[in-house]
Amino acid sequence: MAGTDRKRAVNVTTPTPTIILVDPQLGENIGMSARAMLNCGLVNLRLVRPRDGWPSLKATRAASGADRVIDNVTLFDTTAEAIADLTTVYAATARPRDMIKQVMTPPAAAADIRTRGSAGCGILFGGESMGLKNDDIALADTIIQAPLHPGFSSLNLSQAVLLISHAWYSSEDETPPEDLPMRDTRPATKEELLGFFEQFEAALDETGFIRLEEMRPIMVRNLRTIWHRAQLTEQEVRTLRGVVSSFTRLRRPKE
Amino acid sequence: MAGTDRKRAVNVTTPTPTIILVDPQLGENIGMSARAMLNCGLVNLRLVRPRDGWPSLKATRAASGADRVIDNVTLFDTTAEAIADLTTVYAATARPRDMIKQVMTPPAAAADIRTRGSAGCGILFGGESMGLKNDDIALADTIIQAPLHPGFSSLNLSQAVLLISHAWYSSEDETPPEDLPMRDTRPATKEELLGFFEQFEAALDETGFIRLEEMRPIMVRNLRTIWHRAQLTEQEVRTLRGVVSSFTRLRRPKE
Repeated sequence: MAGTDRKRAVNVTTPTPTIILVDPQLGENIGMSARAMLNCGLVNLRLVRPRDGWPSLKATRAASGADRVIDNVTLFDTTAEAIADLTTVYAATARPRDMIKQVMTPPAAAADIRTRGSAGCGILFGGESMGLKNDDIALADTIIQAPLHPGFSSLNLSQAVLLISHAWYSSEDETPPEDLPMRDTRPATKEELLGFFEQFEAALDETGFIRLEEMRPIMVRNLRTIWHRAQLTEQEVRTLRGVVSSFTRLRRPKE
Repeated sequence: MAGTDRKRAVNVTTPTPTIILVDPQLGENIGMSARAMLNCGLVNLRLVRPRDGWPSLKATRAASGADRVIDNVTLFDTTAEAIADLTTVYAATARPRDMIKQVMTPPAAAADIRTRGSAGCGILFGGESMGLKNDDIALADTIIQAPLHPGFSSLNLSQAVLLISHAWYSSEDETPPEDLPMRDTRPATKEELLGFFEQFEAALDETGFIRLEEMRPIMVRNLRTIWHRAQLTEQEVRTLRGVVSSFTRLRRPKE
């Protein structure tokens, strides 16, 4: 499938989802991911803690001309920062055993992204050796799991990026914005949601809801999973923040 | 998408199509293609003239445990030999300008392969730098072309293998053999078809049909394209061989 004239200008005018690689190790895989993205018209690549630093000559070489993607890579120290401005986050991973999250195939996720508006959507991919950590998966609204041979289901990172990018590219165009069901509000950004989580979890600590410190991570993850599934709007996040404030204000005088 | 236990036995019991890499250059890409194949339950890999020889340590490393595919690779000197025992051949390539052949997307080709019976089907992929040559494409019944961003449509070899293998893996199971429309015959193998082509083209030479030697390659390719589209059965090939024999027998006494 060779034969593209690489000098031809690449025009991508439609809104596209963001690809986020968390703890990627090899520059070659970052570059091949960038190439696969541009093959499918995707241009927004974010890296969280690339092991071998950035920029990477190996990545540029492996990108085979996808300079438009490589040159616009943005770097982040944490996954939370990398998704702060997004409204919907997907995690490309095998179904985790202990988290209740919706699981979609790549085509179903692609349709979902088109409906929600590609520009606000991001897809998390884990590093080569360990994949996504549970704490990263907990930040996502939905799991994307491609059907793969159960005896040998470990995909190369750039291959995973291609499968999901291509499902998006092959899917139907965006639902026009005026057809979206929300009129007076909008989906909460991840930054708004994480701000609410912090307030909520501080309240849990303050009120003694979490009695055993070693249970805290699992408890917090399970509660965040519930909020994610609720797909809160910006208005609803503000309402919930008010509820938590009012609960904790009431408790304090009693203590 | 990590997490497979590589020691777990890989069982592939369903019939699967064959992947044929023509003039592949880098061992890494052969290995990553093998890995992508096994991710999708494919196990039959054939190589035509691998540039750096075989076996290849780089291929084994890049296969990341897909030993079942790597250990059973078969080698061929020509594409014609590599497809001799197959009944239907697809070429993964951009649409050629000067050949009239059916073009399918990967999902459409996957459905077609399932209907014809995966075990008799093979898919040709060209090498990294040049892709498939026209003479290889002429050997195929159908082109498979994935929809890709027109400004940047050059896929990495192993990425092309993944896209098509995954379309096959995601498609519906085989039509049971008893539902196939042919009862007293079967699709011609490529060896039978190529044998007929040789007889037919020798007859063209003998009878002076081809007047300008420099026109011969294009003429032969166009005629082969017609025969391919006809999807001949073994019975029909024998019939046509008889027709050509009888034509040329008639002519000879006149000359």
